[in-house]
Amino acid sequence: MTPHVTIREVALRDGLQIEAPIPLSDKLKLLAAIAATGVREVEACAFVSASKVPSMADAAELAAELHRFPGIEFSALVASPNGAKRAMAAGLGAIEYVVAASDAFSHANVGRSSAEATTLISDIVTIAHDAGATAEVIIATAWDCPFDGPTPPRRVLDIAAAACEGGVDRLSIADTIGTTTPGRVVSLIAALRPLIGTTALGAHFHNTRGAGLASAYAAVTAGVSRLDSSVGGLGGCPFAPGATGNIATEDLVYLLTDSGIDVDVDLDAAIGAANVARSAVGHDLPGALLHAGDRKRT
Amino acid sequence: MTPHVTIREVALRDGLQIEAPIPLSDKLKLLAAIAATGVREVEACAFVSASKVPSMADAAELAAELHRFPGIEFSALVASPNGAKRAMAAGLGAIEYVVAASDAFSHANVGRSSAEATTLISDIVTIAHDAGATAEVIIATAWDCPFDGPTPPRRVLDIAAAACEGGVDRLSIADTIGTTTPGRVVSLIAALRPLIGTTALGAHFHNTRGAGLASAYAAVTAGVSRLDSSVGGLGGCPFAPGATGNIATEDLVYLLTDSGIDVDVDLDAAIGAANVARSAVGHDLPGALLHAGDRKRT
Repeated sequence: MTPHVTIREVALRDGLQIEAPIPLSDKLKLLAAIAATGVREVEACAFVSASKVPSMADAAELAAELHRFPGIEFSALVASPNGAKRAMAAGLGAIEYVVAASDAFSHANVGRSSAEATTLISDIVTIAHDAGATAEVIIATAWDCPFDGPTPPRRVLDIAAAACEGGVDRLSIADTIGTTTPGRVVSLIAALRPLIGTTALGAHFHNTRGAGLASAYAAVTAGVSRLDSSVGGLGGCPFAPGATGNIATEDLVYLLTDSGIDVDVDLDAAIGAANVARSAVGHDLPGALLHAGDRKRT
Repeated sequence: MTPHVTIREVALRDGLQIEAPIPLSDKLKLLAAIAATGVREVEACAFVSASKVPSMADAAELAAELHRFPGIEFSALVASPNGAKRAMAAGLGAIEYVVAASDAFSHANVGRSSAEATTLISDIVTIAHDAGATAEVIIATAWDCPFDGPTPPRRVLDIAAAACEGGVDRLSIADTIGTTTPGRVVSLIAALRPLIGTTALGAHFHNTRGAGLASAYAAVTAGVSRLDSSVGGLGGCPFAPGATGNIATEDLVYLLTDSGIDVDVDLDAAIGAANVARSAVGHDLPGALLHAGDRKRT
């Protein structure tokens, strides 16, 4: 099992994505609290349709402020070559291109089939590399689709193979709607390994059905050393109103460090950032440690 | 890994323990909903001090109704030989005797040191066996104590050895305050195995810090095939107000079955029972599936 896990903080992107837009000044306050946790990688924003995702409309303005936080690798999510160009123009050094493994979700999300989205990978990688940036492919609905049901693993493997062929720097598998569990996590990772060679593999879980942290730990036992999380568990799922969102950074830090796995993120600072996130969105968040606190360590 | 996990439903005991007392008729409604899930083992009540735990004051009255639900093994929790005798007089066929591994918790809970509580094991086993019942020892605060901090594993191993010597039919390790994580779960189970021989080993987790289901799955990967859970996640922890309680039965069922592990409990019926539990206590419960529902299985 890996002795160190790199946590990528996604509160500012996946966390805020379905929230009502908050002022840039509040995003910067949240970012300052996140930077204080020691985290080394932050997904800061998305260069997508401002009309579809109004909370990401200020992506370029936010990007212009990122130089204030040295030592962190910032990335932006994109869904098209145009988004990738906008991210490069805004000075981002890393992008994530989302390809949904299910057609129904891909159509709903970007108006393209999964195969059509896959063919764009090499263009997007070229756009990033030409600008000196890195490119990751996130395979969304890697286990289940809210419309199509379970995703055949073959679809994920084909996208992964195409991504590696297209020259991506990293791959990630995402449980977009929070339905996967440890058994399916381990088996998908085992199936991916022989295909992706030395390409770094990350995983992204939601806690919608309570299994997010269990799936994250299972991924780590299967050799994954990169995990996404969001302070406070910020970030709901539009398809399951009332359900919880991303796995909470502070809960993940607690679980991993208590299990003997090293992370870059300080637990108390992560709880502090979760409190800032809660204030920023003006409602409670599902993170467990936000409510229960750390354990006594006499 | 075990292909089948036996779930013991603890909503009626650990779930209701810190709630304001509810009428016996409501307990029976909840029990009927629980019985409809197909569960084979139910912890029904506790024979403890009625003044300290008023919600369990009607244990004998509830016990008198259990014959209505054939096919389920009912048990009661006890904290003393006197409690064991009361459980036998009430006709229970199985008891769990709690021994806290930490002294501070043991004193707060039963007014005895952990060693003093341990010496009572053989008396209690004899009381059960003489009445034709089985006896389990639950080792509470097996990983952490709210007062003493981390529990030295040696204390747990010593109680386990004494319990096996005392003739218990089953052992269980309990994360009483919801602080343990997969790494410590697996290592404690590995340390216990050589000591306990063929004695059945169960585990009991709370989701207070979000890691309950991850710990439960880790226990299963370490060979444990008996887990406690509570519909809806009913059952808080008096030491962490606002924190969630037992791992939720329906979330556990979802996670295990989706991971390819067989259980006795039907998922839809468990969600139904969680709804009954929520009505019975008159407040929301933390179970994730209670809010998100099952996944689409096209």
